[in-house]
Amino acid sequence: MAKILITSGPTRQYLDPVRFLTNASSGQMGAALAQAALASGHAVTIVTGPVHLDYPSAATVVHVVTTQEMLEACYRLFPDCDGLIGAAAPCDYRPTNVAATKIKKTGEPFNLELVETDDVVASMGRIKTPHQWLVGFALETDDARYRALTKLQQKCCELVVLNGPSAIDSKDNAVEVINSQGDVVLSHSGTKLEVAQHIIKLVDAQLILGNQANLLR
Amino acid sequence: MAKILITSGPTRQYLDPVRFLTNASSGQMGAALAQAALASGHAVTIVTGPVHLDYPSAATVVHVVTTQEMLEACYRLFPDCDGLIGAAAPCDYRPTNVAATKIKKTGEPFNLELVETDDVVASMGRIKTPHQWLVGFALETDDARYRALTKLQQKCCELVVLNGPSAIDSKDNAVEVINSQGDVVLSHSGTKLEVAQHIIKLVDAQLILGNQANLLR
Repeated sequence: MAKILITSGPTRQYLDPVRFLTNASSGQMGAALAQAALASGHAVTIVTGPVHLDYPSAATVVHVVTTQEMLEACYRLFPDCDGLIGAAAPCDYRPTNVAATKIKKTGEPFNLELVETDDVVASMGRIKTPHQWLVGFALETDDARYRALTKLQQKCCELVVLNGPSAIDSKDNAVEVINSQGDVVLSHSGTKLEVAQHIIKLVDAQLILGNQANLLR
Repeated sequence: MAKILITSGPTRQYLDPVRFLTNASSGQMGAALAQAALASGHAVTIVTGPVHLDYPSAATVVHVVTTQEMLEACYRLFPDCDGLIGAAAPCDYRPTNVAATKIKKTGEPFNLELVETDDVVASMGRIKTPHQWLVGFALETDDARYRALTKLQQKCCELVVLNGPSAIDSKDNAVEVINSQGDVVLSHSGTKLEVAQHIIKLVDAQLILGNQANLLR
């Protein structure tokens, strides 16, 4: 039994009290991973942005809005977990300035200055101990495998799950899981629950049982 | 019996295939207005952005994503309707350029140039006939009544419903309805269905029955 932290859903970065940047991540992949991990006997904590679904009641759920809040929740929760699966799609840009009142239309174009948010999985990659593991997600539209492997390396992940924009807010997903050698160790299309079951089986075999075997040596 | 067009929910303006600007409008106010209008014996068509709720099955529902799509649907549908209630929160800025592939993080800030989208209710205000009516919504954070009345005048509305950000994605709403003389003709707090029932009652009394009386003169 492992303690698994799962990030899930989108985050929001507000420009003003009404408007925000986000993406259409629904939390379905995170919910499916939680269900599969619970069924494998693991304890699951989910850090989720705003979504319109119910997570498994056996999971502990922490609600956040912004990427910074997701990051802070992970800094607090990850040290007590064995691993993290980063299924969330945190908003990776935020406006430099957030207006206190609703921005008024003037008829003129305006420039919104955006800066990058801190990367949640990469941040956990910098604090993880040798016995903790990370599974990242990469959603790519071009040079997909190359970019996914680059993300795995930059974020110190053991595995990265590569999928495309068609996964967003869909019941189905088609993924490739790539390891740190760049090998495709799993390739599966199906419902998000089926995909999640395969990912958890792989995590069980390669990261959790592997870690326990390492600890026994 | 009138034919009522209701706009509902948010719209999205994409920066690239994944990220977009939007707001947290849930479509609940539009759904409540549809329910109240149907209960008053009217025919209802809803033009809605992406939401996670079910509209009344007796309404005709047209799904759109962007503000331009909502506008085009209204240009097509409004001429055949008696009136429009603009309960949607269309995204009122769009990126000048939409990237064909996911924008890559570089570590540097970047400027997103935004231009205003065409206003849906104001556009209908420019094409409406003397027998058609418009009810706008204004969501204001400051100078609320003044801005709401300005919107009513600019958009050629008969009535404007003023509410605040607390209405967004909430089961409840607190509204003031202002007429073209600037009088507050309705003030109500309660569930969105209760608020919707009061608005439809007002529309029935002041716009639909009024129009029919005018036609009989």
